[in-house]
Amino acid sequence: MFISTTFIEVITILGTAAFSASAVLAANDREIDLFSIIVLGIIAAVGGGTIRDCLLDTPVFWAEDMSYIYIASASAIVCFYTISFLKKKWISEIYLYIDAIAIAMFCIQGTEKAWALGFGLPVAPVILGTMTAVGGGIVRDIILQRPSLILSKELYAIPVCLGAIIHAVTLAYLPDYSEISALAAAFVIIYLRHLSIQKNLVVPNWALLNLKK
Amino acid sequence: MFISTTFIEVITILGTAAFSASAVLAANDREIDLFSIIVLGIIAAVGGGTIRDCLLDTPVFWAEDMSYIYIASASAIVCFYTISFLKKKWISEIYLYIDAIAIAMFCIQGTEKAWALGFGLPVAPVILGTMTAVGGGIVRDIILQRPSLILSKELYAIPVCLGAIIHAVTLAYLPDYSEISALAAAFVIIYLRHLSIQKNLVVPNWALLNLKK
Amino acid sequence: MFISTTFIEVITILGTAAFSASAVLAANDREIDLFSIIVLGIIAAVGGGTIRDCLLDTPVFWAEDMSYIYIASASAIVCFYTISFLKKKWISEIYLYIDAIAIAMFCIQGTEKAWALGFGLPVAPVILGTMTAVGGGIVRDIILQRPSLILSKELYAIPVCLGAIIHAVTLAYLPDYSEISALAAAFVIIYLRHLSIQKNLVVPNWALLNLKK
Repeated sequence: MFISTTFIEVITILGTAAFSASAVLAANDREIDLFSIIVLGIIAAVGGGTIRDCLLDTPVFWAEDMSYIYIASASAIVCFYTISFLKKKWISEIYLYIDAIAIAMFCIQGTEKAWALGFGLPVAPVILGTMTAVGGGIVRDIILQRPSLILSKELYAIPVCLGAIIHAVTLAYLPDYSEISALAAAFVIIYLRHLSIQKNLVVPNWALLNLKK
Repeated sequence: MFISTTFIEVITILGTAAFSASAVLAANDREIDLFSIIVLGIIAAVGGGTIRDCLLDTPVFWAEDMSYIYIASASAIVCFYTISFLKKKWISEIYLYIDAIAIAMFCIQGTEKAWALGFGLPVAPVILGTMTAVGGGIVRDIILQRPSLILSKELYAIPVCLGAIIHAVTLAYLPDYSEISALAAAFVIIYLRHLSIQKNLVVPNWALLNLKK
Repeated sequence: MFISTTFIEVITILGTAAFSASAVLAANDREIDLFSIIVLGIIAAVGGGTIRDCLLDTPVFWAEDMSYIYIASASAIVCFYTISFLKKKWISEIYLYIDAIAIAMFCIQGTEKAWALGFGLPVAPVILGTMTAVGGGIVRDIILQRPSLILSKELYAIPVCLGAIIHAVTLAYLPDYSEISALAAAFVIIYLRHLSIQKNLVVPNWALLNLKK
């Protein structure tokens, strides 16, 4: 037990808040009201896990613990009134790192939940882990009529999926090392996000096709 | 028992028809075929309750009683061939009031269904009540690639959410008065929709941020 | 037992591959990466059946048999690197016929699955059968921000729905003839798609309304 429960709780709170904040940032350049922002914030924060729980046919996680809804709502309200502050370079960078840690954790939690339920082993947990982390953002983008984050050249969903694969492979072949693999998967996700944020690393050319040609 | 079952049935039929009609009105200015309109009408009419039932993990309501599908289909067909009539000012005003009564009733029913199942009390029933009333419209807008009603300045989802909150608070603290609170919640929703329809009341400025700034 | 299990398996594999390929073709004219294409391919291939299984409250089909995910992924990868070949006229025609056979089969399977579970007989199986065949394409179009296939004048969802109706009517009144009706429904779907592909048959004018007028 390397990872303390308190640490996971802190990341869960910060991550839920960061996901909700992403809705305010994504709604940038629009005239939008506080209610819409709260709705979008909640969707961005819990959407991915909600789809996961529907597919797993388990009770929706936020109905069991409403604090996710409270945190997402509070974060959306705070961000709504501090948007100009949020747009400051150093703040938005902190935000990106909190988001990176959050997608890493939610991805691993989603992968583990699906694995524990024996859902379509060994590949489906990778899909559900990725969906837990990025599903809310996809629904947020659909409602905002923005280009989907899943289609972006930015390294966002790919690191998440890689992390889920690392963790699923370990759960399959070395289940005793699941905690080390969770840390390794988180490291890979956060490090790739770091390269994306700092070095503007994008999808390499061999994996990119301009379908116009 | 102030509210008769017959009255509720009449509202359910009129409300389902009005929700389905909203798809024809939303598809305005497009070349669209009858089949697409029926599909959109059914989605607008039963979409919100369907998402609610998936989250609640209860059988989908329209599979238990197919009359929702029949009414939505019939309404879509009739509206398709009478669209120029529907666009007349006095007709579209009647439509807006039927819709207002319908969102009030579906919101209260959704809140009560979630409450009765003990789903994430006390806040989740508010979310599901609101979703029951506006979820179908959101999916309709997504398929039609229109700006989502949830992002509109019009007072539509906000009155619904307010009504759900009123009803949920009463269910929590004064459960014996649930019928009075259902009427009060419906009154608030319909009255705010009335102000929106007649006086063009929109989201107040303090709750509205032009994120462009 | 006219239809051999092997035949059904071959169609399932070809059909899943064709659905996944549709994502590559739909992403035409965009800069898109391999990972996004795999995600879209999987969504297009299994999306419809996933929504069906959520509504039926049965385990998601691809979690029980991961080969759907493998086939969809492999097809997306192959199509990604052979897109210029896929666009050749004779290849894209073969693709359209494989797709036609696939929507016929998935529609019939979806109708039968809902019927066997007694889900909202007799109309809901028609809805779920249609959704199984076209639901994945609808979600694909939403994520790609393309006009929804359900709104297109092309005869695509309508033949599917017709086939589902034929099969549901037989299951209701002549259950002993379900295999003949499955063949008849498939024939109707494939023949109407053939007319659409070869003769450019579209929705007739009486069922088409230019709502601009």
